[in-house]
Amino acid sequence: MSEFKLTTVEEFEAATARLLETGAKVGADSWQLRVKNQTPHCKFGEEGVCCRICSMGPCRITKKAPRGICGCDVHGIVGRNFLRFTAGGSATHSDHGREICHTLYETREGGNYTVKDPAKLKRIAQEWGIETEGKDIYDLAHEVAETGLLEYGKPFGTQKFIKRAPEHTQEIWKREEIEPRAIDREVSQALHMTHMGCSSKPEALVRQALRCGLSDGWGGSMMGTEFSDVLFGTPKEMETEANLGVMEEENVNIVVHGHDPSLSEMICEYAEDPEMIALAKSVGAKGITISGVCCTSNEVAMRRGIPMAGNFLQQENVVLTGACEAIVVDVQCIFPALGPLSKCFHTKFITTSPVAQMPESDFIRFSSESAGENAKLIVKTAIENFKNRNPELVHIPDMKQKAFVGYSFEEIIHKLDGVTNSFVDKTGTTMPLVDCVKSGVLRGAVAMVGCNNPKIRPDAAHIELMKKLIANDVILIVSGCSAQAAAKAGLMDKRAKELCGAGLKRVCELADIPPVLHMGSCVDISRMMILASEIAKDSGWNISQVPVVGCAPEWMSEKAVSIGNYVVSTGIDTYLGVEPYATGSSEVDALLKGGLRDWVEAAYTVESDIDKLGDLMIERIEEKRAALGI
Amino acid sequence: MSEFKLTTVEEFEAATARLLETGAKVGADSWQLRVKNQTPHCKFGEEGVCCRICSMGPCRITKKAPRGICGCDVHGIVGRNFLRFTAGGSATHSDHGREICHTLYETREGGNYTVKDPAKLKRIAQEWGIETEGKDIYDLAHEVAETGLLEYGKPFGTQKFIKRAPEHTQEIWKREEIEPRAIDREVSQALHMTHMGCSSKPEALVRQALRCGLSDGWGGSMMGTEFSDVLFGTPKEMETEANLGVMEEENVNIVVHGHDPSLSEMICEYAEDPEMIALAKSVGAKGITISGVCCTSNEVAMRRGIPMAGNFLQQENVVLTGACEAIVVDVQCIFPALGPLSKCFHTKFITTSPVAQMPESDFIRFSSESAGENAKLIVKTAIENFKNRNPELVHIPDMKQKAFVGYSFEEIIHKLDGVTNSFVDKTGTTMPLVDCVKSGVLRGAVAMVGCNNPKIRPDAAHIELMKKLIANDVILIVSGCSAQAAAKAGLMDKRAKELCGAGLKRVCELADIPPVLHMGSCVDISRMMILASEIAKDSGWNISQVPVVGCAPEWMSEKAVSIGNYVVSTGIDTYLGVEPYATGSSEVDALLKGGLRDWVEAAYTVESDIDKLGDLMIERIEEKRAALGI
Repeated sequence: MSEFKLTTVEEFEAATARLLETGAKVGADSWQLRVKNQTPHCKFGEEGVCCRICSMGPCRITKKAPRGICGCDVHGIVGRNFLRFTAGGSATHSDHGREICHTLYETREGGNYTVKDPAKLKRIAQEWGIETEGKDIYDLAHEVAETGLLEYGKPFGTQKFIKRAPEHTQEIWKREEIEPRAIDREVSQALHMTHMGCSSKPEALVRQALRCGLSDGWGGSMMGTEFSDVLFGTPKEMETEANLGVMEEENVNIVVHGHDPSLSEMICEYAEDPEMIALAKSVGAKGITISGVCCTSNEVAMRRGIPMAGNFLQQENVVLTGACEAIVVDVQCIFPALGPLSKCFHTKFITTSPVAQMPESDFIRFSSESAGENAKLIVKTAIENFKNRNPELVHIPDMKQKAFVGYSFEEIIHKLDGVTNSFVDKTGTTMPLVDCVKSGVLRGAVAMVGCNNPKIRPDAAHIELMKKLIANDVILIVSGCSAQAAAKAGLMDKRAKELCGAGLKRVCELADIPPVLHMGSCVDISRMMILASEIAKDSGWNISQVPVVGCAPEWMSEKAVSIGNYVVSTGIDTYLGVEPYATGSSEVDALLKGGLRDWVEAAYTVESDIDKLGDLMIERIEEKRAALGI
Repeated sequence: MSEFKLTTVEEFEAATARLLETGAKVGADSWQLRVKNQTPHCKFGEEGVCCRICSMGPCRITKKAPRGICGCDVHGIVGRNFLRFTAGGSATHSDHGREICHTLYETREGGNYTVKDPAKLKRIAQEWGIETEGKDIYDLAHEVAETGLLEYGKPFGTQKFIKRAPEHTQEIWKREEIEPRAIDREVSQALHMTHMGCSSKPEALVRQALRCGLSDGWGGSMMGTEFSDVLFGTPKEMETEANLGVMEEENVNIVVHGHDPSLSEMICEYAEDPEMIALAKSVGAKGITISGVCCTSNEVAMRRGIPMAGNFLQQENVVLTGACEAIVVDVQCIFPALGPLSKCFHTKFITTSPVAQMPESDFIRFSSESAGENAKLIVKTAIENFKNRNPELVHIPDMKQKAFVGYSFEEIIHKLDGVTNSFVDKTGTTMPLVDCVKSGVLRGAVAMVGCNNPKIRPDAAHIELMKKLIANDVILIVSGCSAQAAAKAGLMDKRAKELCGAGLKRVCELADIPPVLHMGSCVDISRMMILASEIAKDSGWNISQVPVVGCAPEWMSEKAVSIGNYVVSTGIDTYLGVEPYATGSSEVDALLKGGLRDWVEAAYTVESDIDKLGDLMIERIEEKRAALGI
């Protein structure tokens, strides 16, 4: 066993530089070049002070032009843009959840999709007041799926899952009138409020942004997570690997990218099909390697141990290896650049969803009814493309790390049970974790999530913050591209305990976990909400009192803002490394960074100096400890 | 009776100039000044080539920077912006429809809201397969309302009202995969498709824009219209007046503005309350005058004959008269400028909806449960404000015209029945109209709708086009601010027949109608869809063959684009005077202005030379006639 050493960001960058040389040879474009072309960015847009909501404009707020043609001031314009940004994220996340509900509705005995975790299905059914007794599991699945689908559009009432939150949190949501109703209704109302001649009061706009976010985190995303577990199994600890070195030169490489596990799970199934493996061998390959990019990668890593080729800003790199037979995508965070880039190589860029149709791609429409044959066709297409590789262009960086993943809420509880004295203590609770926090062995936790963004040195913020935090006995729960940054660096190797403070190191040893726990994809931030809620219930603290903060140091997508809003609304202070397009309004900015605290007991902090961002989080955790007297 | 004469746009402008003098005295801002400050507009925004959908940007497409950081090209960016613009409009219109459904759900015998057109309710219930026999009318209302509310979020199936379209139209929608599903789902999916890393293919984006529009026109808006009729009565021909001169100096003037009749109907009720009239007299007024602005005005004009003070770009003028005690608004198209402007006068700017909260307004929250007391408080507040008028600032332009309004689909059929020989012909059809078109007495019809926009000389395009069209024996059906432009000019006076060609003049005389028929508010464009469908069914032509076109010469709002999309998707060529923010992409532009024809048998024409726009419409009508051989 070789000595354990983190991979550095400098090493990542050197590998990328080498791949970009290949790109230059074939005339490929890259995000690094496009960033140069697009810099500097429009200041009006960056500050959120530009309005294109009606065709009298566009209007831009300046000192000389303090109001748009309709008379809207800068606070209204920035507030509306912020709410629309959130709505984009909520709709997107939740529409992913809706697709999962539809997939659950399509399950049948022996079908393309089956129920892999019937116990979880029954738990949810009971929670929702659906009779389970004596019911066929598929009848139950369909009933639960239909009830779930109605969460998007029911005429009355609020989201069912909000009852999972502590009483105190629910009371806040009620008091502040941000209890989320039907998910799509919150999205539509957000667009209505921001339509020409509707709301221009920052408080109203930001309040709806919170509500819209909550409908995502405690609605669509939570259903996405829960029903994905029902369909594909609730993640358990699993060993895998991360970084481009997981691709194998002698194999047919299929990279899955996107978000919805309905596609990637099926691709994985067919890649293990003996017929497909034989076909791969017949074309001169040794086998088939599936690896992943972005959240789809997290989904199949968490449940199948499929290796992670990379995160968001590494998606072009998988094609640049010259060894990617097919990059198969579903929805979200897929660079349209993959179209022209794949044309510089033999790579097939396969789009599959009507929701994400891109030029210069092969569209193989994927649907749950015909998922098996769709997946088989995709795998076959990739295999048959192996022969078209140009060996001169092939270079896979020899760079990967071992990673333990699969820490769903249930798995974390299972791990905690392992350190519980079951003769004395109740099992199935978060109390061992609470006790560690109370005693100070752990100072607290950070939920680190989100994307990469060229505005921040890619992966560096994630990794440096994690290193700093674990050295200070702060445990990390992570998801999305943040999780992949950690995995690529080696922070999900259990040996990373050596980088921890003494307290966290001891916890890692006792519980047999790495210091950075992979909780899944971006919809799985809902798992973190459940964990925070359970900690609050077990400890008797309010969520806002628990020494935990959220962090998205390199976020870029609308989804991230929706997430931020539901995390803050749940009472968790959230730290960002990139400003949302909202600095142009002192009122909106002050609300987000302070005023929210009066409503939901938490707020945002934005700091682009990443080291300082880390200090601020530690400071906040210590403040919370002091307030609790621990 | 004085001689009939149209009021000219020059006269409108002179009246406005006089009001702006008052504004200058009190230091008031105005849209005329703000347009100067905001001109020239940002070219990137106007062309739709600026993307703010993720926080890696904003990105702008130029020759040197042909792709955004994610690699999206100009066609993807413009297409996404166009789809989002549509989604904003669909969501907004349909959310108005949702509120109406909720109001219908709140009806009860003797309650704030009652069923005023039970026959229509029963017709809709039967159409939807809801049992009506022996059912209490309020039980039926609640059942229909709940079914309507589910149209926003039902997990499966398409909009119920699309069955009203001719078979051929329905087949097109099916073939093109644009049959609208749940309304909010189309909105959410539009946001999802346009999220970072989803669709960038113009065809996919524009197709969803059509679908989203259809969910509005044949879903949310149609329900808004139909259930408003059930609640407040189906409009019948009614005489009223239009332009600022309808305000009365000696009275308490309350101006209703916005869109949802639930508020304005209740205000009208209380303004007739003897207690309120007595109160008005006690403060020195002679009485109470309610007048309207924008679509709320259309709603109460169509059902109550309440006079129309003005349209969109005249909203500041009502305050500038110095004689407006309260401008009471609900949602949409309300200038935030009314806040600071009202502070320059004694006017109370009263906002009422959580969806439209604005700074510097008095917020009196209106809800269907407490509608009566809310309305009473509002009326009282206005009356008590009468004493605060500054007589020196009072000037109401002596300018108004008589107008006949109330031409719902049902009323048009009723009018047509009046010219039918009921011994020979079937009544209750559009055949008399079809026969007029076949014989050439009428050349065709134009559905003219939409807003004002300072990019076009306000009202001039509406009025000049109407004058040209009626002179050419083309009948007008109109709604929204277009209708108010017509009314202000005098084109809804029956004497306007004198301005028509001989054929149309004869039709006006026989049917006893003006040549420009007011069909209602902007949601009421759904009435036009029903009329077009019935004409197609009665004539045996496809909708796209009928010599009718749509026109929005001065449009400005997202709703207008949603409308445009459903009108075009219904097979009606649509003519705009203002470009949508889509000219930056040759592909999107070509689709909208031509490619759509292959999908839905109609497309857009944009022409800012208004005279030419009129010629193009007449040309198209004649082309359609020629193709039909009539």
